[in-house]
Amino acid sequence: MNTAQPPERTSERLIAFLDAAIAISMTLLILPLMESVSEAVADQRTVVEYVREHSWQLVAFALSFVIIAMFWRLHHGILHADTSAGRRRTNLQLAWLFTITVMPVVTALTGGLDTGREVVASYIGTLAVSAWLLFTIAVVERRTRTAAGLPVAASIAAMPLSLALLFTLALLLGLLVPSYLWLFVMVLVTPLRAILLRAGVVGR
Amino acid sequence: MNTAQPPERTSERLIAFLDAAIAISMTLLILPLMESVSEAVADQRTVVEYVREHSWQLVAFALSFVIIAMFWRLHHGILHADTSAGRRRTNLQLAWLFTITVMPVVTALTGGLDTGREVVASYIGTLAVSAWLLFTIAVVERRTRTAAGLPVAASIAAMPLSLALLFTLALLLGLLVPSYLWLFVMVLVTPLRAILLRAGVVGR
Amino acid sequence: MNTAQPPERTSERLIAFLDAAIAISMTLLILPLMESVSEAVADQRTVVEYVREHSWQLVAFALSFVIIAMFWRLHHGILHADTSAGRRRTNLQLAWLFTITVMPVVTALTGGLDTGREVVASYIGTLAVSAWLLFTIAVVERRTRTAAGLPVAASIAAMPLSLALLFTLALLLGLLVPSYLWLFVMVLVTPLRAILLRAGVVGR
Amino acid sequence: MNTAQPPERTSERLIAFLDAAIAISMTLLILPLMESVSEAVADQRTVVEYVREHSWQLVAFALSFVIIAMFWRLHHGILHADTSAGRRRTNLQLAWLFTITVMPVVTALTGGLDTGREVVASYIGTLAVSAWLLFTIAVVERRTRTAAGLPVAASIAAMPLSLALLFTLALLLGLLVPSYLWLFVMVLVTPLRAILLRAGVVGR
Repeated sequence: MNTAQPPERTSERLIAFLDAAIAISMTLLILPLMESVSEAVADQRTVVEYVREHSWQLVAFALSFVIIAMFWRLHHGILHADTSAGRRRTNLQLAWLFTITVMPVVTALTGGLDTGREVVASYIGTLAVSAWLLFTIAVVERRTRTAAGLPVAASIAAMPLSLALLFTLALLLGLLVPSYLWLFVMVLVTPLRAILLRAGVVGR
Repeated sequence: MNTAQPPERTSERLIAFLDAAIAISMTLLILPLMESVSEAVADQRTVVEYVREHSWQLVAFALSFVIIAMFWRLHHGILHADTSAGRRRTNLQLAWLFTITVMPVVTALTGGLDTGREVVASYIGTLAVSAWLLFTIAVVERRTRTAAGLPVAASIAAMPLSLALLFTLALLLGLLVPSYLWLFVMVLVTPLRAILLRAGVVGR
Repeated sequence: MNTAQPPERTSERLIAFLDAAIAISMTLLILPLMESVSEAVADQRTVVEYVREHSWQLVAFALSFVIIAMFWRLHHGILHADTSAGRRRTNLQLAWLFTITVMPVVTALTGGLDTGREVVASYIGTLAVSAWLLFTIAVVERRTRTAAGLPVAASIAAMPLSLALLFTLALLLGLLVPSYLWLFVMVLVTPLRAILLRAGVVGR
Repeated sequence: MNTAQPPERTSERLIAFLDAAIAISMTLLILPLMESVSEAVADQRTVVEYVREHSWQLVAFALSFVIIAMFWRLHHGILHADTSAGRRRTNLQLAWLFTITVMPVVTALTGGLDTGREVVASYIGTLAVSAWLLFTIAVVERRTRTAAGLPVAASIAAMPLSLALLFTLALLLGLLVPSYLWLFVMVLVTPLRAILLRAGVVGR
């Protein structure tokens, strides 16, 4: 038996697996729309009536699509395929994937139920947990690459931290006054990132 | 810390992600059929009755399948994996992906509702927006590759522009006289492309 | 502008796209089961009652899973990523993909409706069309690789032809006496392949 | 005709195909949640009521997500893309994939029906079959790589065997006293693996 160590696994297959799952979650966001379309068809509504009755469902769909796309782009910017995929790092990625996988469920809740404390918290809370996990991923990635002598941009953790702080802020505000409008605090994400970098909180 | 720049990201992972999402959208086109099959099963219809009652739904499914396949093939012809994936270009791709992701929804509307101004507009309009975005992608791709000194076929924008113009024409005609038959203007796509190339509108 | 020809596209992205769509079709085969499970849950049936009432649905699911897996394995054996993806060959692949995409729909029909001439024809007919398209793909692949001087196993078209002939036979028999048992003619696939190869019908 | 043998196929495309299908199965676990959300929306329940009424469904979803993720990670650790994909090995992988594909169905049964002998057996039984197949895959992989002179970790079969034994134990206990709590025997997986390795049952 050839007892040499087999080649160490890089993150390539892990990334491909995550991407497939994220792409599916993003696409399954249309499921509540598909269902409401088939109801509208059964009731012979017009398209205008359909859009009017389901406007909030459509907004929730578009919003979640944009947010998952943004998370994916961020994840794309953090992870490199040449880093080895250790067990802990893999688990961390899969935990993050869990938050993306439940997005269609919380989006359906958000698009269907009246705006209340609990439903706002379940939607924004999922986003906050996802962002904190992505921040952890970025920190671990930077440490792993630094330890392995691989090149790494010191600033990769700044954007996820900025997102995590703002989603947490939006969550707290949403618990006080239930509204999705608090998500507009996200416009501060770029200035906050710049402040975090300048303050040296997350490396520069 | 190794402060060398990590290797610049190419479009490879972006393309794989888009392809996964497009493949899912294409497959989710069957969802309204699955639902109507389960109704037909509950009512113990025969296959012939099922096909007769849902003929338009079947046509809409096949049409959307062909159109998404055509869009994918075109996208495949435009994007090269060796171009770097900048932030703006990534956003542009994700915006285009959004139009593909909603295709199962507008297909379900089209297959289920009576042909009217609004439903024709939502179907052909989605296709027109998708084609214009693909045209923008082609223009940006050509410019990026030219700037980076990478080889590029000057004509890659001709087909998307040709599609975008014809879908827009079909949309306008469909708003005047609501009908999906206007989509037959698409037979002009190859001659129009030739004219656009000869006129030098989109490079040659 | 760098007017050199960009690198010719190989079939790599096409294969990845097809595989994603095939994997999804294969997985969506469970949709009728998911629906009948939620009905069984609503009626508080036991698992044994559920299996008894939906035994044919379960058989149809398993059968289609095995058949799509077999088609995929065959496709995997035919296509090489290093062949260039021309427009016609791409269209041929996408036409074949269409037959795989409708498999969940015809499987749902088969699992739900009583065995009749039409439903047997729609199920076995889809398989026959799929096999003939795969045979065409194999023939074109062999010709393309031969023309390009690439190595190719002359026998790659034998198995698809064998499948196509037997599915067609099963279809004809099923039109005479409606039954899925005719699919047992598939046990002849290996001997028939050997005969076809010996007779030199499809190269050796 | 170039009669040289075309390059032998490695497991690369097989792995990508499996990963796509596993990612979809993992994501389709949310389908029962999507359905119960749309019922909760129709009945205008609050999120708290929804969670209370569907708590077991949510637990079943999270449990199955974690288990599929664990199976994927294990599979990732066993299979190497550089091993050639023979026909038998491919069939073995596809048989294993079948057990993953039915996971959303047995999860929906588990999340919806009262805990009884049959439903516990269908859930834990599926996991046991899946683990035994993964063990077989590991044994075959080790033998194939050893025969081909490729490096291989002798211990790759220890974890799947450990899982298979414990899932079988949980299944037997669950048949005696129907309960999902028997799944807590899985905490023994790491010590059992160490014992199996020390005893030399699966190589060291």
